[in-house]
Amino acid sequence: MSIPETQKAVIFSENNGPLEYKDIPVPKPKPNEILIHVRYSGVCHTDLHAWKGDWPLPTKLPLVGGHEGAGEVVALGSDVKNWKIGDLAGIKWLNGSCMSCEACEQSHESNCPDADLSGYTHDGSFQQYATADAVQAAHIPAGTNLAEVAPVLCAGITVYKALKSANLKAGQWVAISGAAGGLGSLAVQYARAMGLRVLGIDGGPGKEELFKTLGGECFIDFTKEHDIAEAVIKATNGGAHGVINVSVSEGAISASTKYVRSCGTSVLVGMPAGAICKSEVFDQVVRSTKIVGSYVGNRADTREALDFFARGLVKAPIKIVGLSTLPEIFEKMEKGLIAGRYVVDTSK
Amino acid sequence: MSIPETQKAVIFSENNGPLEYKDIPVPKPKPNEILIHVRYSGVCHTDLHAWKGDWPLPTKLPLVGGHEGAGEVVALGSDVKNWKIGDLAGIKWLNGSCMSCEACEQSHESNCPDADLSGYTHDGSFQQYATADAVQAAHIPAGTNLAEVAPVLCAGITVYKALKSANLKAGQWVAISGAAGGLGSLAVQYARAMGLRVLGIDGGPGKEELFKTLGGECFIDFTKEHDIAEAVIKATNGGAHGVINVSVSEGAISASTKYVRSCGTSVLVGMPAGAICKSEVFDQVVRSTKIVGSYVGNRADTREALDFFARGLVKAPIKIVGLSTLPEIFEKMEKGLIAGRYVVDTSK
Amino acid sequence: MSIPETQKAVIFSENNGPLEYKDIPVPKPKPNEILIHVRYSGVCHTDLHAWKGDWPLPTKLPLVGGHEGAGEVVALGSDVKNWKIGDLAGIKWLNGSCMSCEACEQSHESNCPDADLSGYTHDGSFQQYATADAVQAAHIPAGTNLAEVAPVLCAGITVYKALKSANLKAGQWVAISGAAGGLGSLAVQYARAMGLRVLGIDGGPGKEELFKTLGGECFIDFTKEHDIAEAVIKATNGGAHGVINVSVSEGAISASTKYVRSCGTSVLVGMPAGAICKSEVFDQVVRSTKIVGSYVGNRADTREALDFFARGLVKAPIKIVGLSTLPEIFEKMEKGLIAGRYVVDTSK
Amino acid sequence: MSIPETQKAVIFSENNGPLEYKDIPVPKPKPNEILIHVRYSGVCHTDLHAWKGDWPLPTKLPLVGGHEGAGEVVALGSDVKNWKIGDLAGIKWLNGSCMSCEACEQSHESNCPDADLSGYTHDGSFQQYATADAVQAAHIPAGTNLAEVAPVLCAGITVYKALKSANLKAGQWVAISGAAGGLGSLAVQYARAMGLRVLGIDGGPGKEELFKTLGGECFIDFTKEHDIAEAVIKATNGGAHGVINVSVSEGAISASTKYVRSCGTSVLVGMPAGAICKSEVFDQVVRSTKIVGSYVGNRADTREALDFFARGLVKAPIKIVGLSTLPEIFEKMEKGLIAGRYVVDTSK
Repeated sequence: MSIPETQKAVIFSENNGPLEYKDIPVPKPKPNEILIHVRYSGVCHTDLHAWKGDWPLPTKLPLVGGHEGAGEVVALGSDVKNWKIGDLAGIKWLNGSCMSCEACEQSHESNCPDADLSGYTHDGSFQQYATADAVQAAHIPAGTNLAEVAPVLCAGITVYKALKSANLKAGQWVAISGAAGGLGSLAVQYARAMGLRVLGIDGGPGKEELFKTLGGECFIDFTKEHDIAEAVIKATNGGAHGVINVSVSEGAISASTKYVRSCGTSVLVGMPAGAICKSEVFDQVVRSTKIVGSYVGNRADTREALDFFARGLVKAPIKIVGLSTLPEIFEKMEKGLIAGRYVVDTSK
Repeated sequence: MSIPETQKAVIFSENNGPLEYKDIPVPKPKPNEILIHVRYSGVCHTDLHAWKGDWPLPTKLPLVGGHEGAGEVVALGSDVKNWKIGDLAGIKWLNGSCMSCEACEQSHESNCPDADLSGYTHDGSFQQYATADAVQAAHIPAGTNLAEVAPVLCAGITVYKALKSANLKAGQWVAISGAAGGLGSLAVQYARAMGLRVLGIDGGPGKEELFKTLGGECFIDFTKEHDIAEAVIKATNGGAHGVINVSVSEGAISASTKYVRSCGTSVLVGMPAGAICKSEVFDQVVRSTKIVGSYVGNRADTREALDFFARGLVKAPIKIVGLSTLPEIFEKMEKGLIAGRYVVDTSK
Repeated sequence: MSIPETQKAVIFSENNGPLEYKDIPVPKPKPNEILIHVRYSGVCHTDLHAWKGDWPLPTKLPLVGGHEGAGEVVALGSDVKNWKIGDLAGIKWLNGSCMSCEACEQSHESNCPDADLSGYTHDGSFQQYATADAVQAAHIPAGTNLAEVAPVLCAGITVYKALKSANLKAGQWVAISGAAGGLGSLAVQYARAMGLRVLGIDGGPGKEELFKTLGGECFIDFTKEHDIAEAVIKATNGGAHGVINVSVSEGAISASTKYVRSCGTSVLVGMPAGAICKSEVFDQVVRSTKIVGSYVGNRADTREALDFFARGLVKAPIKIVGLSTLPEIFEKMEKGLIAGRYVVDTSK
Repeated sequence: MSIPETQKAVIFSENNGPLEYKDIPVPKPKPNEILIHVRYSGVCHTDLHAWKGDWPLPTKLPLVGGHEGAGEVVALGSDVKNWKIGDLAGIKWLNGSCMSCEACEQSHESNCPDADLSGYTHDGSFQQYATADAVQAAHIPAGTNLAEVAPVLCAGITVYKALKSANLKAGQWVAISGAAGGLGSLAVQYARAMGLRVLGIDGGPGKEELFKTLGGECFIDFTKEHDIAEAVIKATNGGAHGVINVSVSEGAISASTKYVRSCGTSVLVGMPAGAICKSEVFDQVVRSTKIVGSYVGNRADTREALDFFARGLVKAPIKIVGLSTLPEIFEKMEKGLIAGRYVVDTSK
């Protein structure tokens, strides 16, 4: 496969500055990296944050964003042994980590203090050719639809990891707070595939239908129910064994500590700006509940989440547009006009 | 052993009403209960709350308080098979539970919604003869000093359970917030016996010396250190793997979420009135930390905590006074004049 | 509900002696017991062993066998709080336990050295009215078909517990050795409901079809495949993460240690007389595999296994005959002429 | 630091062939490797097996053996970020692994099918300069005695990992079968540091004294006790919660399944040639015991085991001789004449 010298990318030189769709050089993989011909990339709210630079952690500049890239391997660094040219590969948020710190050595590489982040500290998937650490890059099973798998590489892995962090057994109740949104829809499907009983919380027209279509069992509409906690406790006969908080409402996050069952686990996933989770100490002690933060997945979570997708148990509805239209997607995203997941085709 | 018809007890008929030291009938054990001749009982802040009635849960009335009672078995209910007359037995906070709900069947009997509580919903150990559920009553090893073991029956078990809830491995760092207090002193000793490295946080003269005597490794005095989180992170090279919050400061509880290590666990134990634990969602997600409530121990925790005591690995300094002086102890307690643990001798 | 003085039962006075279908007194519940009007009872190989007395542990004599009884509660012992007259209740192998030993206090009550066993040390379900410890008796959800649920009370709970003991995550491979037998058929269904991928091993005509009908994914016929281990490893891309040994072949049990994946778990369930599990030490160390014994379920396992059944995720095909025909069933069982599960109707 | 072109090493060209002490070239680190100036190396039975070539897995040839090497870093591969020149580093059995397979991605890198083994498939520590994968090489705390730490790099990590694999809580009983041998002596010390109660099994004069000196609590001499299982069960009041099998007797390994407590774990570590572990299926099911293989440690186990050593909680008595005498050590080893651990000084 011949690799060109230059390629199309969307790049910006300063946070909040112009997003330029233009030719830039194709990067060269380091000894530990692979070069991936990115075919499709999901667009995530995090990409908007990276561009705006409104998170505590500074981005590299100039930056090519994107961290949900799917494509095939076109070149291998000199040390790479676990990939072949032509393999399908995914770029995910965690581009690489030190593999040597206390977090990495226990497979918590997402928590590595020196984590290298795609589309943030490492040029990401909004370009046709991107580099990724060979150890962390996602192995995508042959035959997978590259456009459809793109959102799984961040959103899918994240909710799957959150469900694992809730430490549930098949047959137990999991509540998904924000069940009808992008992350929530995936969470419902993963939860079902894991044998869990799913209660969804969300609000507005059409949400319950969507939720039921995805395999959800019991829906609570927060626009209609005045006491959410009571409703969840009643529906689950004592409270949800686990809660996945993908809602972006700070109040909803704190509320989850009320309807989680005694000895159960409320998992924090969504990160509304500046949000604080508040929990009553007396209640948390006497009912021995847990509040657990869950970040993005590690290599095993990635492989597993992709495997559920490849087996057809999880679907992510997408809308495909050209990479060149990224600035417009960001604009819509800022205005809250996006429902579902946009995926950009890097060839356009 | 002959059992009298009446006995001495401290009893009150209404919350906050007179505490009367007087003769009352000796209770009869139900088929599932044992009758314990209580020799000594620890006095705990919870006993003060029960008398005042200032907790959400109502007490039985009239009530004999006390839930750290040590004595010997003098009578057995008709169904009891696991005790013999003369065995040493302890009365603890959890007097009995249903053994049949979802919590009980998984050995989380402390979280049973129908838990029967000594000195709260069931007459407790501030009397010479008290009844206890045969399954939940604590087996005290023969030869144990009954006065010294009394505080272990609540305070000891509670901190031991909290340490287990932190899910640590030997060699890891545990921070005890409130290390020099009654619960903290026991926590330091249990932590040492479990092979943990112990960092203590407390303030004021003599605290560091006490802490070091108990086996603590590193002390942080909050009256001298202006950035506790930074100091803990530095001393432990990245944060404590676990934190035991026995401090009664709401601010200290929330602060523990800052100095717990990535992927580590902050355990809530102490329950300042109305306290809220506040945690930054962004930080908790990205560092994947846990906040876990821990209540009193179950049967296994009880046996294990007593075993550490019986093997001489844990000591609780006590001050023995007569049961008749209980009103004065409550008075001192309310004024915050008590250092160490009072134990009442029921024969005086 | 009026309770008669006498009832029909199948009873024997000495091991291997006559099985008499006759009138015997209705037992009275002790303070901790309930009296169940048994409507149906499954017949299990263990019942045959109890009658023959060919296991190391002696039975009570005379004995009413049976440990898969389903009926309704008709009387309560004086201490019983967790049942009402009319509740549906199940009699299972573990009739009662001490609730106080190291096993019981950690919810491993099946491993209690003083376990009381239905149809073995305690008169069982081959009678119209039987007593059971109120804590251990199974709560059967209202509306459940009592004939169909009977085999779940032993076989179902046992395989469900075994699957839990394999410590698997949804999406992993479990191999069921003996997949088309009575226990195996239930194991396949529970495994599916838990989100596992199921490989079955069994032999003979019609077995693969049955297995696939139950939701199995990949079948290996030991009458056709000459290298089972190789076949399993190939089909699962590295070996099964867990193995459930319900086959009664000693050789098959030892073989399971070969095709379990590195770091995986082979669970022992079936107990061929005198069987030894042989494992190569070098292989087990280098691949860090586990061999784990799993016995019958505890209260939580029971509730969970019944819940899967009540939700329609598991079915056990049965053949209903009268209790009076039990001697003939035993005869067929001894001759190996039984396929599927016999359930006796105690009214006939 | 100047690195020479050649160095002293002990090398052999064919299995069982001459062991030559001679000058060979200093290896060059690959991009992912560090070059370590090996000062001391332990000598382990595995080194004898590598030379003789009597294990199923073939060695590289010609081969420099050794996998317990301690020294300092003198050069870094181009990709290495987690080491500095001058850091103390250890060479252990697992030189490197793929970091990408299902085992590696879950931190079970010892079970990687492509594991690269020091002194077996990768030239080891019986030379003055050796290469090691930067991710897997052991970080030795500054100030550590390099001769004394050498045996910890294999024997210490291995027994520490085995103790973790037994999944015990502080205060529980662990039995060390082979407690007075090289591995056993280390196991006793690690177990003590982890808060366990240690029972030792071994035989012969002076063994009990050694065991008690190391912190062991209860010793059973198999040359005096005729029923080991009964003796262990009596001493531990029900059986050891965990067993570490470092004995090289096949019979002792199988016997451990008898005296492990119900629900307890027997860990296989030592690998007598061709040994089979035999377990009675009935007993293992009814008592729900586990038999678990444990291999060498991963990165976290390594760091933790070294940390216990650095904190002075574990000591390994050694005998230092010159590297040139290695052939004589092997000779003694084959004849079973070695007590304690030999460490070779690579400068002599």
